[in-house]
Amino acid sequence: MRETLADWRPAIDEAIADLVPREIDTDYLETFFGPPTYEYDPTGIECALSTPLWDLLDRGGKRWRAILFLVFIEGFGEDPAEYLPYACIPELLHNGTIIVDDIEDGATIRRGEPALHHVYGHDIALNVGNAMYFLPLKVITRNPAALPADRRLAAYEMLMDELNRTHLGQGMDICWHNDHDLQVSTDEYLEMCACKTGCLGRIVAQLAAIITDQPAAIEEAVATYAELTAVAFQIGDDILDVEHSLGRAGEFGKEFGNDIREGKRTLLVIHALEESDPERARRLQAILEADENTDDEITEALTILEETGSIEYARDCALELAADARAAIDGLAFDAETIRKLEEFTEFVIERDV
Amino acid sequence: MRETLADWRPAIDEAIADLVPREIDTDYLETFFGPPTYEYDPTGIECALSTPLWDLLDRGGKRWRAILFLVFIEGFGEDPAEYLPYACIPELLHNGTIIVDDIEDGATIRRGEPALHHVYGHDIALNVGNAMYFLPLKVITRNPAALPADRRLAAYEMLMDELNRTHLGQGMDICWHNDHDLQVSTDEYLEMCACKTGCLGRIVAQLAAIITDQPAAIEEAVATYAELTAVAFQIGDDILDVEHSLGRAGEFGKEFGNDIREGKRTLLVIHALEESDPERARRLQAILEADENTDDEITEALTILEETGSIEYARDCALELAADARAAIDGLAFDAETIRKLEEFTEFVIERDV
Repeated sequence: MRETLADWRPAIDEAIADLVPREIDTDYLETFFGPPTYEYDPTGIECALSTPLWDLLDRGGKRWRAILFLVFIEGFGEDPAEYLPYACIPELLHNGTIIVDDIEDGATIRRGEPALHHVYGHDIALNVGNAMYFLPLKVITRNPAALPADRRLAAYEMLMDELNRTHLGQGMDICWHNDHDLQVSTDEYLEMCACKTGCLGRIVAQLAAIITDQPAAIEEAVATYAELTAVAFQIGDDILDVEHSLGRAGEFGKEFGNDIREGKRTLLVIHALEESDPERARRLQAILEADENTDDEITEALTILEETGSIEYARDCALELAADARAAIDGLAFDAETIRKLEEFTEFVIERDV
Repeated sequence: MRETLADWRPAIDEAIADLVPREIDTDYLETFFGPPTYEYDPTGIECALSTPLWDLLDRGGKRWRAILFLVFIEGFGEDPAEYLPYACIPELLHNGTIIVDDIEDGATIRRGEPALHHVYGHDIALNVGNAMYFLPLKVITRNPAALPADRRLAAYEMLMDELNRTHLGQGMDICWHNDHDLQVSTDEYLEMCACKTGCLGRIVAQLAAIITDQPAAIEEAVATYAELTAVAFQIGDDILDVEHSLGRAGEFGKEFGNDIREGKRTLLVIHALEESDPERARRLQAILEADENTDDEITEALTILEETGSIEYARDCALELAADARAAIDGLAFDAETIRKLEEFTEFVIERDV
């Protein structure tokens, strides 16, 4: 096993470049996509597909979905180097959702540079984002060719289940954003996270289990681990937004309280609306529903979250999810090194400060 | 077999409503998408998924992909009524691409009403369009449960191949739109059509062949028929745009020559650039490259297409493709009624005037 998890990053990027080379030629197109009926235009496909895709990947990203996949593969006693093309599947799916989400949210910045639709236009960005939903799925048929038919089918059926629930989660989140009147329960919020973020985690874990032919109980255990870790990660994001905002509220000219400004129903907001006295709950609701807020109003909302104990509540909830994630894989026959790495992942999602 | 093809439309819409009911409840969500980890929000999912989906479907559409699928099923000696859920697959995929294309093109109108992203916002529209890429693919696993594993795998692998090439075709088309300097050959244009439009046709035909377990040669024959018919249909679209524009150029206040205004590389344009004298070719190129054109310039470009014989050339090309499409299924053991219906399809795509 490589010394640290991040050491896998160059090999992952090489594997992605095998799937989508930076420079597109006819040979690649015919090999990967099949022979054309007439004649491909490699220049057009390079400008529409690989240039924007590599622009996004070259900006950074930790490739942690691919790395987590390789940790599972090694945990299952296989050589990760042989499964690199599969590691690209969740990674490309994830980066595809980033491009699409940025268009949906009207985001302007991604990884420190203009969002892809601002660089290439909505048409190119959306098409490459969607292409990244299907391109990696061809790996299942192509690499390695020795994967038995029943494993290929299991992989496709799992992917269809999870990619469907991803869109349910995204749909719920958007709907709650747009209609601020809706009451969202804690369980509905956790379900949104489980669908929107958790399903990509489940894909990472289940794909590793399916292609190494693990029993159903092991596949479900690692899926639960990855899903709960992803939900904890999402809650960690919500906490960070509030904590950074509380620290930054006095700083001149710095944007803060973005989630509040967007009217997002986070676990902290749901808790504060349920637990604070009626007057403060109404005030928080009013600030969330307003199209525009002053900095004072944002500070007021953040203070309500703080005073209601919503930050501690959310952190406890995330810690509990991380503990549940570890418990899910407790009975599995992983070696000590794999267990250590999987625990590292659950700690990272709670304790990171960026 | 039903009297006319259009008679299938209500049954197709009923089958779609079984997959995505107009009103979403928890029972449906648990049955179709699987049990939640926590708790679904049916109201949110209805507003994000089924409301916009049915808004688009209720505006019209001929459902001809679903109908063509049923013609094939009957031609293969099976009862179409038993395969209605499968007929929804290409239909929902097609309507999903419509929503996504409208966002990519910045379209304002769809089927006589505001495009979906103008009604529901980019976020809801894009999410439902993308959900429609995955939702119908669950049918392969769910209905009818009796479909053997090797047929399910063959269907998924075929779908991944074709949905990948769809995005290549769309990418080439967008790239040519954006970079007017590019030289596009006739074969590259036909490939773009074969990928962008033809692949959905291939899905219709191959899905019917795969799930009724036809030999590979028959699957390929009907795929070729459907692909060539779709390419002929696309060329028919290009011809109609020019013919309507020539007829409409004198009418006050009517938009005409939309393809020229958008700088689209159609088969007519490619032919005219290759066949007209250098001066007129340069003039046509300049009009296509300009960001804005006067009505006189549009009329000038249309006249160049007309005088170069590009309309006849494109029509001959479409007729040849339709003949090739019919030839592809010539040796198959279809009954006379199926042959008549399939020939009707190839005639419709050439002779329609809307």
